[in-house]
Formats: sequence, C-alpha cells, structure tokens
Amino acid sequence: MTTPTEFAHSINLAWVLLGAFLVMFMQVGFAMVETGFTRAKNAVNTMAMNMVIYPLGVLSFWALGFGLMLGGVPEWDALGPSLASGTAHEIGFHVGGHFFGLLGGSKFALLTVARDPSNLAMFLYAAVFMDTAATIPTGAMAERWKFAAFLCYGVFIAAVTYPIYGNWVWGGGWLAGLGVSFGFGHGHVDFAGSSVVHMTGGVTALAGTIVLGPRLGKFRRDGTISAIPGHNLPMTVIGTLVLAFGWFGFNTGSTLSASDPRIAAIAVNTMLSSSAGAIAALALGWRWSKRPDLGMVCNGLLGGLVAITAPCAFVSPQAALLIGVIAGLLVVLVVMMLETRFRIDDPVGAVAVHGACGMWGALSLGLLADGTYGDGWNGVAGPVRGLFFGDGGQLVAQLIGVTTNVLFVFGASYGFFRLLDRAVGNRVPAEVEWAGLDTQEMASEAYPPG
Amino acid sequence: MTTPTEFAHSINLAWVLLGAFLVMFMQVGFAMVETGFTRAKNAVNTMAMNMVIYPLGVLSFWALGFGLMLGGVPEWDALGPSLASGTAHEIGFHVGGHFFGLLGGSKFALLTVARDPSNLAMFLYAAVFMDTAATIPTGAMAERWKFAAFLCYGVFIAAVTYPIYGNWVWGGGWLAGLGVSFGFGHGHVDFAGSSVVHMTGGVTALAGTIVLGPRLGKFRRDGTISAIPGHNLPMTVIGTLVLAFGWFGFNTGSTLSASDPRIAAIAVNTMLSSSAGAIAALALGWRWSKRPDLGMVCNGLLGGLVAITAPCAFVSPQAALLIGVIAGLLVVLVVMMLETRFRIDDPVGAVAVHGACGMWGALSLGLLADGTYGDGWNGVAGPVRGLFFGDGGQLVAQLIGVTTNVLFVFGASYGFFRLLDRAVGNRVPAEVEWAGLDTQEMASEAYPPG
Amino acid sequence: MTTPTEFAHSINLAWVLLGAFLVMFMQVGFAMVETGFTRAKNAVNTMAMNMVIYPLGVLSFWALGFGLMLGGVPEWDALGPSLASGTAHEIGFHVGGHFFGLLGGSKFALLTVARDPSNLAMFLYAAVFMDTAATIPTGAMAERWKFAAFLCYGVFIAAVTYPIYGNWVWGGGWLAGLGVSFGFGHGHVDFAGSSVVHMTGGVTALAGTIVLGPRLGKFRRDGTISAIPGHNLPMTVIGTLVLAFGWFGFNTGSTLSASDPRIAAIAVNTMLSSSAGAIAALALGWRWSKRPDLGMVCNGLLGGLVAITAPCAFVSPQAALLIGVIAGLLVVLVVMMLETRFRIDDPVGAVAVHGACGMWGALSLGLLADGTYGDGWNGVAGPVRGLFFGDGGQLVAQLIGVTTNVLFVFGASYGFFRLLDRAVGNRVPAEVEWAGLDTQEMASEAYPPG
Repeated sequence: MTTPTEFAHSINLAWVLLGAFLVMFMQVGFAMVETGFTRAKNAVNTMAMNMVIYPLGVLSFWALGFGLMLGGVPEWDALGPSLASGTAHEIGFHVGGHFFGLLGGSKFALLTVARDPSNLAMFLYAAVFMDTAATIPTGAMAERWKFAAFLCYGVFIAAVTYPIYGNWVWGGGWLAGLGVSFGFGHGHVDFAGSSVVHMTGGVTALAGTIVLGPRLGKFRRDGTISAIPGHNLPMTVIGTLVLAFGWFGFNTGSTLSASDPRIAAIAVNTMLSSSAGAIAALALGWRWSKRPDLGMVCNGLLGGLVAITAPCAFVSPQAALLIGVIAGLLVVLVVMMLETRFRIDDPVGAVAVHGACGMWGALSLGLLADGTYGDGWNGVAGPVRGLFFGDGGQLVAQLIGVTTNVLFVFGASYGFFRLLDRAVGNRVPAEVEWAGLDTQEMASEAYPPG
Repeated sequence: MTTPTEFAHSINLAWVLLGAFLVMFMQVGFAMVETGFTRAKNAVNTMAMNMVIYPLGVLSFWALGFGLMLGGVPEWDALGPSLASGTAHEIGFHVGGHFFGLLGGSKFALLTVARDPSNLAMFLYAAVFMDTAATIPTGAMAERWKFAAFLCYGVFIAAVTYPIYGNWVWGGGWLAGLGVSFGFGHGHVDFAGSSVVHMTGGVTALAGTIVLGPRLGKFRRDGTISAIPGHNLPMTVIGTLVLAFGWFGFNTGSTLSASDPRIAAIAVNTMLSSSAGAIAALALGWRWSKRPDLGMVCNGLLGGLVAITAPCAFVSPQAALLIGVIAGLLVVLVVMMLETRFRIDDPVGAVAVHGACGMWGALSLGLLADGTYGDGWNGVAGPVRGLFFGDGGQLVAQLIGVTTNVLFVFGASYGFFRLLDRAVGNRVPAEVEWAGLDTQEMASEAYPPG
Repeated sequence: MTTPTEFAHSINLAWVLLGAFLVMFMQVGFAMVETGFTRAKNAVNTMAMNMVIYPLGVLSFWALGFGLMLGGVPEWDALGPSLASGTAHEIGFHVGGHFFGLLGGSKFALLTVARDPSNLAMFLYAAVFMDTAATIPTGAMAERWKFAAFLCYGVFIAAVTYPIYGNWVWGGGWLAGLGVSFGFGHGHVDFAGSSVVHMTGGVTALAGTIVLGPRLGKFRRDGTISAIPGHNLPMTVIGTLVLAFGWFGFNTGSTLSASDPRIAAIAVNTMLSSSAGAIAALALGWRWSKRPDLGMVCNGLLGGLVAITAPCAFVSPQAALLIGVIAGLLVVLVVMMLETRFRIDDPVGAVAVHGACGMWGALSLGLLADGTYGDGWNGVAGPVRGLFFGDGGQLVAQLIGVTTNVLFVFGASYGFFRLLDRAVGNRVPAEVEWAGLDTQEMASEAYPPG
C-alpha cells in the first residue's frame, strides 16, 4: 500500500524538478537580454559568457558550493510529509535556528548523498539558482572583460561567495538565526532569493564594473555621455519574456512543495509585481525621455520580478502591486543615477535591476508581510509580519541581511576582481575593445557575411 | 491525515498553474511571429506592443476584467474534488445554466478573494488567456498604429470586450445557458477558447485593420498588390513553434484538473490538428504559389491549433485531423481573399488564423463532438454531441455563439476604434510610417549599426 | 472513493504529458542550432525543414510508425500502478522478453486506442521522440538538399526506420530480448534514447551527407578545407540552451512515472554530464584552435546530453560526469576527423554529436551501470549492472544494440537516399546552391532588405 506521505513526496519532488527546469531555462533569457543590449561586435563574447557560466557554475557548485551552502541541512523531508502536516515551510530550505557556521560540513561532490532523491533534487534546484546569480554580472561587465578572467570569476562566485551568503540565509546560518537568537522577527527571510540570488548577482556586478571601468567611449572627455545602444532590441524583449516565464518556477518552486496551496498566491504576486514594474518604468521613462523606452519597460518588468522574489509568499496581491511600482521607478532612477552621477557603466542595467530591486524586495518583506504565511519559519513560531503589520523586528532582520550582503559580497568580489587584475588581468587591450571582442578574443563573428 | 480531496486539490492546482505558465510563455511566440512578419523599421514598435500588452492587460484585467467575467462564479471546487468524483468538467469554468448577466458582481482587484488559492489560480489562468486574445490584433494592426492608441486599446479589450464575451460563455452567462434555457445542446461550448479567445482577438483585429486602413504602399493605384515581406522569417518560425509548445498548456490546462484523464486525448488532438493544418497549408500554398511557402506553413499550423481549441476534449483523433486539414486550407483561402477581394491589409494573417479558424473550430464542435465527454457540461445531462453524432441543437448553440462574437466584438471594437480615432488618433502620420515607427514613435532602432 | 492506483495514474499521466511538451519544445532548439550554423542564404530552407518535419513526422508516425513500433505492447499500466508497486520500470516502455517481431500488430492511426488515455499519452511521447530523431539529419544535410527529397525522407524515417529499430529496443523486440533469450544482461537497455533516438538520427545523417556529398566550396581542389561559418552564432547558442532545457523532459519523462523517485538522479545526471561535456569541449577546442570555440562548447554540451540519455537512470553522478567528459572530447575529435580525414561535410556536427556520442552513451551504460536501478528491466531479474560492476553480458548487449543500429539504420537510409537520388534527386543544382536555396527552392528570403 501507498501512504499519503509517499504521494506527497512524489508530487513535491516533481514540483521541485519542474521548478528547476524552468529556472535553468532562464539562462536563455539572460543570454538574450544581455546580448541584445550589447553591440554586434561583442555578441559572441556576451553569449559565450552566458553559455559557459552554466556548465562552469554547475561543476564548481557540485564540487564545493553545494556542500558549503547546504551541507549542514540534515535532509529535505519537505519533499515528503509537507502535504500531510501542512508545514512545508517549517523545514526544507528553511531549517534555520542553528549556527553551524560557514562549513555545512559534507555533501561535497554529492558523495554522501548520491542516491538520495531529495538531496539530488535540492542540488539541481540550488544549482540553477546559483547560476542565475552568477550570470548577472556578465551583463554589467560585458564588452570589455577578458574571457580567461571571466572563467576564474565563474568558479569563484559558484564555489565561494554565493554559497557562503546562501548558507547564512538558507543553509541555517546566522542570518536565518537572527530571529531565534536575537528576536528579530523570523530572522532574515528571503523566500526565493531577492537578496540571496539577485542582490548577490547585482552587488558582484557593481564591484566588477567598478574594477573594470567603463567601456571606451562611454564617458567622453567633454563630460558628455554616449548612449551605446545594444545591437538587437527584439532579442532583449524576447529574453525578458523568457525570464518572466522562468520566474514562475523560481518563485513557486521555492515552496519545495506542490502541496502547499500558497503556490497560487505566489504566482499571482509574481505576475502583478512584474506588470506593475513594467508599466511604472514605461510611465517614468516616457516622462523623462519623451518616448516609450522599450528597454526601460523590459528592465522595469525584471525589476518587479526581482523585488517580489523575497516577499512573494508573504504579501497580498495589492502589496505585490505596490512593490512592483516602486521597483519599476527604482530601476529607471538607479540606471540614470549610476550613469550620470556615479559614472558607472553597466551596459544592461544589472546593478539597478538585480542589486537595487533585490535590496528593495528584501526590505519590502520587512514592511509588508501581512501575517498570512510563514508560521514556524526559521524556527520562530507564528507567521511572518512586517513593520506595517506589527513586527518591526522583521524589518531589522531584513536590514541586517541586505547590509551584510552589500558588505560581504561587495568586499569579497571587489577584492577578488582586484586580485584577478594582477593575476591574469581583467580588461582586454584597448585595440581589442575597439575592434570588438569577438574577432579578437573569441576568433568568431556573431553574424559573418554570406 | 490527508484526504483524497486534498491530494486532488494539490495536483489540480499545480496543473492549472503550470498551464498558466505555458500560456504566458505564448507571449514570446506571438512577439516573434508578429515581429518576424513585419519590417525591420517597425520591429521595436511591434515588439513593444507584444511586450506591453502583457503587463497592461494583466493590470486592467486585475482591476476590472476578472470581476466582470468570472465574478459570479461562486468558487472553483474543480481544483479539488474532481479526481474523487470524476466530474471536473461539470464545475469549474463551466458552471453555466444561470443568467447572472454582465456583472459577475465581485472579485474586482481580487479584493474579496485575495487569499483563496483556487480563485488566485483562476485569475492567473484567465489573465494569460485574456492576454492571448489581446495580443492578436497587434499583428494585424502593426506598422501603422499610434502607440498611445494601442495603450488605450489594451485597457479596453482586457477590461471590457474580452471579459464580457468571456462571461457569456465561461462565466455562466447567457451563451452557456442556451442549453438549460432553450434546449440547444449543452449551450455554447468552447473548451479552451476558439471563440472566447481566438475569435475575440481575430474579430477585433478585423475591426482594427479596417479602421486603420492598409499600410502605405500595400495596394497600389494601378490595382496591383505589394507583397511587403517580413524582415525575419526565421523569427516567425521559432515563434510558431513556441506557440505550438505553449498551446499544450492552453488546451490541456483547461480541464482545470490533472486528474481528468482526458488530458491525454486533448494533447494528442492538439498535436494532430496542428500537424494536419500545417501540411494542408503547405500543399495548398505550394499548388497556388508554386513553392513551399514557409509563412503559410506557420499560419496553417497555427490555424490548426486555433480550430482544435474549442473541440479538443470532445472529438476523436480522426476528427481532430479533419478539423486541422480544413483549418489549414481555410487559412490560405482567407489570407488570399482578405487581400485580393476585400483589400484588407493584415500583415501577419491574424484575421485568417484566429478569426476564421476560431469560428471554424467552434462550429466543428457542433458537428463532430462524438459523445465521449462533457457529461453535465453547462448544467445539461449527458455528454456533448454534434450534429453528426445526433444533436443538431449543439450546432445551433455554436452558431449562436460565433454569431454573437462577430456582432458584439466587431461592433464594440469598431465603435471603440472610431472613438479612438477622434480622441487620440489611430494612425501615425504618413512620414512616420514611411520612415518607420521605430525611429519616430519609439526613438529606438531594433538593429542599430555597430 | 479514490484509490492509490488512480492517484498514481493521474500524476504519471501528467508527468508523461509534461515530458512530451518539453521534448516537443526541443524542435525550437534544433531549428535554432541548425539554422544558426548555416548561411543566411539557406536560413529559410533550414528553418523550413525543422518546421515541416514536426507535422510531417507526426502524421507519418500516426498512420504507420506508432503501430509498427509499439503496437504489440499490450498497455501502459506504468501510467498507473507504478507508485503502488514501485516497479514502473518493469513495464511500460520496457516490456521486453517477447519476440513479436517487426509488426507490433495494431494501433495504426490510433484506431484501436483512440479513447485510451495511456496509449494516447504514449503516442504523444513517442511521436516527439521520433521527431527528435527525424530532425537531426536536416542539419547535416543542410544547404544543398532538395526540399521535395526532404519531404520523402521525412515520411520514411518516421514511418519506417525509426519505428523498426525502436520496436527492437522499446517495443519488446529482439534487442530488448537479448537478456531473457541469450543471457546478455538485461538485453539492450536504452533509458531515453542514446541509441534509439540519437544514433538513429546521427547514423541517418551520416548516410545522408555521404550520398549528398559536401557543400560546394567546402573541400577545395588544392586540398584545403573551407570553414564556412554559420550566419548567426547567437542563434545556435540559444538553441543549445533550449535543447538543454527540453532534455530534462526527455530524460526524466522516460520513467513514464512521476512517482519513481529516480527522476531526481536522472535530472542531476543530465545536468552534470552536459556540463562536463561543455567544459571538456571548451578545453580541447581551446587547446587545438587557440581560442575558446563557442560552437564547440555548444556541441560539447549537446554531446554530453546525448551520451547520458541511455545511462541516466543507471549511473552515479560521478559516472555521469565521466560520461560527459568523454562525450565532450569525442565531439571535438569526431568533428575534426570527419572533416579532415574522411572529407565528410556535416555543417552542424550532427554525426559527431548524435551519432558518436549516442554510441558512446549506449556503451557507457554497459560499462558504468552500477546496480542501483532497473530491477526486472526487459524481464530480467535484478538491477542493471555494467562491466565495471560485474556484468560483462550487459556490455555485450549494448554492443549488439549499437552495431545493429549502425548496420540497419545506415543500410536502410543509404539505400533509401540512393533510391531517392534516382526518383526525385537529392541535390539542388549547383547554381541554386551557389545562389542559396532560399531564393530558389523556397522563393523567400530570410532577411529581406527594408
């Protein structure tokens, strides 16, 4: 006979796998968004980074990252009894409450868990999340980055920075424990990765683009700024829609359970926030540049997706809309400010979309979580509530989480990129950059004539 | 302990969400088909309409459309007990039998159902269906439509025309009630939207392209017709295959139930009809134009998909093939006739694919439904049968449904577009059209040089 | 009341359908990989083959292939009791042990099974697998093949060669029976199609490209070889990632059961092998051509996917990595050797990726299957073990299977292509080839000017 637990295990395992497939598909979206936003002479190079980060990240995460990040999580029974007990969110990703510190302790190269379906499914799911973070900086650093340096970076983020911060939030680390240990709400709560995935990618991108410096010709000597349009805006649009599709797996899959009916609210919040972000960015972009700026619409939609990723399970549809509107405005503002005020050159807007909106998303949970979900999260009894719903401590935990991300990820990445500068060099020679990285670095043209 | 009802609820909720994700992904397909069929100088504009209709439609449908269309449906228990009772199709979408008229009555802005998983899942599913209808006219009206007018249109179809007709068929409105009230079969039956989604899109497209008029240079003064090929046929092909993929979610998801084993027949019918449509269009196109016309193959495949959408759950695989063959031939015929006989300029063939084949699909159900499925549909006992299987009344109900669509949707859309003409103007100035909408309306180029 | 068997049936049916959808989506990947690797003047033709093979193959398989291949399989209870019994793999696809020879005996045109959900789901799943095989040769034979000849080929592979070899392995034919009848392990075991699907496609491609001969200008009179780069490398990259996404459905769906927890290991093995293949090809390609060859990375990733397809359920993650590394190296080697040693012109590398890696994958199972899975497979008791885990007989069965594939598929295809040469001609005239097939054969341009 088959028990209810076995049924629940089956549908939850299938759900996590399907979610992982959808998130893996987001690689297509990132590759198209980033390559569309760059010039034809660098299209092979930009595509190559988006292509290679997937296998490179997976292998690095397999060897080291997974063990570091989630090695200490005893098991994912979430993939089983959750339907029966209705408490998927108490366990799974979200064990929390213990400080087993940096080193998870085992699971390196999957050696100890090679036959365990739950751990294997979690590896798959965690690996594609890591790849999402790892692929974000390749856009901000495009059109001038040495391919060999990129390869070193790929190993670093997949095996070191991402897993360490991920461990602190999702592996039962100290940020997850802020609630149990210090009484700050439920500790740092990030449902699907506004801080863990997107801020990590966006903050790394910021460090990288600062170390690399702007593309030649971006900031002219006379103080004017050159626009440098991407070579294929339709490609960027398609990539954006692909990301919006895959994001449903990103957010709803993070229940680790098809038997948690909250997946419906998560999906709806994801759709509403992204829609609000797109329309807000359209409106503000139109007002500022006197035209419907399609690139901004894309980034506004993505900003809405990034922001809702942390709070998607904890807020109402109305709050999701508000979160999206602010994210859409934020994208336009931050893109402008980075360029005009800070003279930072980010060809695709990755710092604004993933960094700024990731931070806003994590904080928004600390404001707007309305107490409908999250009972027992990170070991703390009762549902998750933000400041506006009575728990100011949750906002403190969110603030500590994002501050930690900025300090740790920026510091580690900046140091690593500086090291890389000395070891292999980050930036291609000026003549290679002028000619395009494709013919020089990659010895291929994206669109060779007839 | 977990009950069978809870298990069924879980897998059905997951099924509806996955279906909605796949249908949302069809936005990628539409964007690529339409943009591939238009010229490079309008590629940003065509992409922009396909991109913006998604968030714009979602927000409009959230605010008004959903309440108008489905506000009166008491609940979707379909997402639960169907496995146990085997009667998913009696309930859910298909409550029928009551005339609660236009105003469903509630659910505006999701306020009353913000925490109910079934209603949220239905909102998601209904919203992406609406977006499918709303994105269809942007192809027929491409290359000459003012962006501001398009924005007004987006709100109108998402909040007014689509929800009203949708309410009549799927919200328990008078077309659903034609069986219970007047004895016409099971009332107007449309499994996944040949009439509700595709005819609504195609008929709106017809009204729009008539009001807009043909593109400059399409019909020359000497009576000859210019071909105006699209700028990227490979993009159109990829978009077509993406649509064929997403359509599996469109049709099988419309059971609202993974526990209804009819999903297998639905998927097979979808595949067979689309295949037959593609090959029929290939053959007829080849015969007429003396070459294998790839654009026609794409539209033939889409025509087969559109046509099978209404009858997919009710007919045999052999009937699905027949439905597809006729749809494929119809596409070629209608594309030719619209252009040569009626001098109507539809750059992508949307009127033929979605309008004509949508009508054929809804009618084909009234001919070929074979009595294997639909017991209790719209409150009428016994399975659904078409004319050839003994129930001429069903054909009458289908005829009333499609006639109503033509009259209501055409009338309302035509009137709206005329109003729009006065209020903001529909058509860009001739110099903008000659130069291309991208540099003028959008201030972006799709493929800027180096 | 609902029984556990009904629950299992529901989730397994849904799983098979979702798998089929993902595999159908791989048509997008193939179309993009192949068209990206060919020249702009043949882009419509290459797209057309990838587009038309889908409906053409489906209809041919519906009429003949399915009955021929799987007509003798009594039923697919796998889609039901597997969860309860934990023995999904004993039945389903894998009935084995009988020699009912070529003719399955029934199910032609689905006539006898038109209302049976399990058979319909299996038709859908088997049809998209067939289409995968059928679309592979269109890449190897691109840029010079007459469209009418391609159409004849499409019917032939879908209705004859693929179903016959498929019957031998998956339809209970003599290769499946090698264990029961002759004691060679579990007979020829191919979990998801390294030999049945990919070798069949790759070996057909080899026969086809030999009969067609190289493209004009490929091998120059002075003995040098022209590179002929494809016209859109970004398109190829996107197609590769799309294939990697769809492949998760290809491999995990082949359990025919969501209730088999082995799906997690299958997905992880698929990811690891493809990653290892990509990085191995990157390294070897870089070493040989002194640059990171992005096309080789794509083919290495695909080679890793092809190779793991047969053994994915039977090997450990470590073994999957090893299989992928060897596949990645093999791709680079075979691409080089075919071109320089054998003067065979395969524009996309299909023979190396699908033929060579398909063979390696089937053999690797005979070496590395570790005894964790496959109890009762093809009617043989005990799990499947390769040579390194104690069963040399399994390797013999794998060798017989791949040898049979080479002999039968190559022989039948070569003969068919020769016949086709006489009947309709395979190759376009030289002037058409120089001008491009698009303007001549297809009367369309892929990217017409303004």
